[in-house]
Amino acid sequence: MTDQSILLDHGSGGKLSNELVSRIIVPAFDNSFLNAQDDGAVISVNKGRLAFSTDTFVVDPIFFPGGNIGDLAVHGTVNDIAMCGGVPQYLSVGLIIEEGFSINKLKEIVSTMAKAAAAAGVKIVTGDTKVVPKGACDKIFINTSGFGFIPEGIEVSSSLAKPGDQIILSGNIADHGVTILTLRENLEFDTPIQSDSAALNKMTAAMFRAAPDMHVLRDPTRGGVGTTLCEIAQKSMVGMKLIEQAIPVSQAVMGLCDLLGLDPLYVANEGKLLAIVPPDQAQAALEACRKDAHGENACIIGEVVSEHPGTVVMKTAIGGARIVDMLTGEQLPRIC
Amino acid sequence: MTDQSILLDHGSGGKLSNELVSRIIVPAFDNSFLNAQDDGAVISVNKGRLAFSTDTFVVDPIFFPGGNIGDLAVHGTVNDIAMCGGVPQYLSVGLIIEEGFSINKLKEIVSTMAKAAAAAGVKIVTGDTKVVPKGACDKIFINTSGFGFIPEGIEVSSSLAKPGDQIILSGNIADHGVTILTLRENLEFDTPIQSDSAALNKMTAAMFRAAPDMHVLRDPTRGGVGTTLCEIAQKSMVGMKLIEQAIPVSQAVMGLCDLLGLDPLYVANEGKLLAIVPPDQAQAALEACRKDAHGENACIIGEVVSEHPGTVVMKTAIGGARIVDMLTGEQLPRIC
Repeated sequence: MTDQSILLDHGSGGKLSNELVSRIIVPAFDNSFLNAQDDGAVISVNKGRLAFSTDTFVVDPIFFPGGNIGDLAVHGTVNDIAMCGGVPQYLSVGLIIEEGFSINKLKEIVSTMAKAAAAAGVKIVTGDTKVVPKGACDKIFINTSGFGFIPEGIEVSSSLAKPGDQIILSGNIADHGVTILTLRENLEFDTPIQSDSAALNKMTAAMFRAAPDMHVLRDPTRGGVGTTLCEIAQKSMVGMKLIEQAIPVSQAVMGLCDLLGLDPLYVANEGKLLAIVPPDQAQAALEACRKDAHGENACIIGEVVSEHPGTVVMKTAIGGARIVDMLTGEQLPRIC
Repeated sequence: MTDQSILLDHGSGGKLSNELVSRIIVPAFDNSFLNAQDDGAVISVNKGRLAFSTDTFVVDPIFFPGGNIGDLAVHGTVNDIAMCGGVPQYLSVGLIIEEGFSINKLKEIVSTMAKAAAAAGVKIVTGDTKVVPKGACDKIFINTSGFGFIPEGIEVSSSLAKPGDQIILSGNIADHGVTILTLRENLEFDTPIQSDSAALNKMTAAMFRAAPDMHVLRDPTRGGVGTTLCEIAQKSMVGMKLIEQAIPVSQAVMGLCDLLGLDPLYVANEGKLLAIVPPDQAQAALEACRKDAHGENACIIGEVVSEHPGTVVMKTAIGGARIVDMLTGEQLPRIC
């Protein structure tokens, strides 16, 4: 382990694999489930509804302002579970590492994952590490899967939006995608921007306490707010009316979007949520969201309507109306 | 979807992603959990001990005699859960696909996964698909994660082997690894060989009925039987005595190992298990194993001893004794 690069042997399943896992990975995530190092983790659970999700991360570059592929991977699955109404508890980690990758960078990524997991209150309980020859993957890819239980009474799904519901967005859009693209294009700007990568499970828990009958929760990652709302409108067979001026975008990100020809409505977010809430609980949900560290710019951006089911219409800043369709074409490959 | 290659757009999170998932992936795995297409699957469970595992597959080539990366990925996680004593029930699938990959091949892989899941009695309930630019990964990588419950009374772990226990191996070793290497080296042989890739959860269930007090179950994948037994010996702080002549290897595979300079004891298996069983239940476990479709060549290959804790010693065919260490050096990268 004095060598500073990952070797193919680290993925052989033999002695070096064993050392990599025992010396670097298991100590970072230190918990009794993982320490057993069996083929899986054994976890005692109670009767209930479990939310189970998976997400793979291939972001490039792997380090960026606001995080790296490691905490992004933890936040991603934590958020997917939270968006099902679940309280995230246990995660698995599957690493694919390119031969020659720096062991120090691996340590940094793993340590960031451990910190992100601790901050979100989840345990990384089982894992798998593969090493592929140089050129067979680009640096490192991370899969996280996980689960948590959904408290009684909570029932959210993309198919449950109802006319009259208010649409809450938890803050500024497009920060993550624009940060990654800026890095990749080697652009430099006066105003520093950074990814919004964050775990939202504390925010969703607070929102459920304030508004237990929320209908839909989604995190607008790839495809952005525009695509996510279209999916909800189609699954719920409802229309949506958005107000462009209500959608928060920072000036710096808006400027970069103009420059790069991006519509922020379709740019990925990694620490934002959309909540669709019955009108009588919308204000309470919004206030709970705003009190969270990641929700200070939360606002209501529109409402669900019975007209034009399956279609999202946006009232533009200049007073017109445009149909918001799903993203077509890839704006940003390897954004997450 | 008339295009026959995967485009970056298929991973954008937008319209083409939606079509790929809705038209190819969800219909193949058809079940109510996945059909909801929310951020995760919501599953009602009872109180109990849950076995949770993850495995990533990067095998090259992706199609091989005896299977492909798809059913291999299903079998891998099914087996990891089964080796914890669990009854595998629910899987997630995370795909990383290279831009330009054939959609027909993807359909074939996904359909093989669906068949393997159905045969093993598990449901694929949630997933994620990423597309990376050409050259950023090699063809396709698949992560599967999953869980199942451990019936009451069952308690297996690599740390539970006891002196006197018998070591059962469920059949011929090295078939998978040698098949992959033969393909990769473009070797041709008179005797066709094929991967042993298989789900072992029916076998383990039958073995537990016959021998409820089994101490250890492990599938000797990467690192082979040799490395797996070393890990168990170290975790349980026991010695092991193996009898080389008792370890079944097919003639064809033995011949190829000789030719290629491989020790079959360290070559990966994908449809075999090692069971460490108290002496009074060993015969019953062996018989249950042999009755299974994948266990006809099962046999007792040695026993656990109190001498030389942490060390595996093998009585060789010519009457000597050698220490079986963990695999050092990578025999076969991307074997699974």
